[in-house]
Amino acid sequence: MDLLGDWWTPLVLRDAFYGVRRFDEFQQGLGIARNTLADRLRRLVDEGLLEKQPYQTDPVRHDYVLTEKGRDFFGVLAAMARWGDRWLAGDDGPPITFHHDRCGHETHGEVVCAQCLEPLTAEDTSMRPGPGYPARLEEDPEVQRRFAGRQG
Amino acid sequence: MDLLGDWWTPLVLRDAFYGVRRFDEFQQGLGIARNTLADRLRRLVDEGLLEKQPYQTDPVRHDYVLTEKGRDFFGVLAAMARWGDRWLAGDDGPPITFHHDRCGHETHGEVVCAQCLEPLTAEDTSMRPGPGYPARLEEDPEVQRRFAGRQG
Repeated sequence: MDLLGDWWTPLVLRDAFYGVRRFDEFQQGLGIARNTLADRLRRLVDEGLLEKQPYQTDPVRHDYVLTEKGRDFFGVLAAMARWGDRWLAGDDGPPITFHHDRCGHETHGEVVCAQCLEPLTAEDTSMRPGPGYPARLEEDPEVQRRFAGRQG
Repeated sequence: MDLLGDWWTPLVLRDAFYGVRRFDEFQQGLGIARNTLADRLRRLVDEGLLEKQPYQTDPVRHDYVLTEKGRDFFGVLAAMARWGDRWLAGDDGPPITFHHDRCGHETHGEVVCAQCLEPLTAEDTSMRPGPGYPARLEEDPEVQRRFAGRQG
């Protein structure tokens, strides 16, 4: 998935969902440079998606465990995986499959409209500046033009 | 959204969905270094998410237009936006809102199980190696352990 080549952050999260907790396991699984991995783990801890739990003292060693905020990222990863299956998977099929324990079926993540549960596509959806949109940008003619003429 | 600080690729795509097509518009909208932007656009063209369409000759200038593969990434962006609204938005509310033209409602993207349409969460879902999973990795005891002990 070369497009995501610099997206180490979601790959680290994905491995955390698999059950990886330790620095060396992340490192071996991802084949990522140790300093890059240390940076990504630190960022995920700073942002509150992972938390460090000591499992050993002298020297102190930590597990990296998903927080609630981190676990909630699962849907984004599932949406990424679905897109990857459509556009990047080889003839062999998807590298990872999803099983929904709740309903008992092999499945995949589908991004739908929260109101009507139909798939949410670019063709059928408009994006608009919301209440939290930066006021300074809202006055910008460039920005107004942007929201007027989407490619959809 | 500091976590996504190095995720210029989805931000470029998001702006393409707004209707941005030209290098200078991407550059102004994102406040991104020109060489970084050039690299991300080149990568998105190489990967088939954007295509270059000349709008001027002598010198040649291009629009960057979403392909079908690029437009299909919309769901991933909608899932990211939803997660960001939950965990990163300030008191003012979401910076961007989604309007589903098809059903006529203000909405957001929801990642659901394609089989039962219930939200797809880490707690209720197992990931397993699929048919396209690299065979050399499947034999790896490290990998087998990983899929056995997810954090969920």
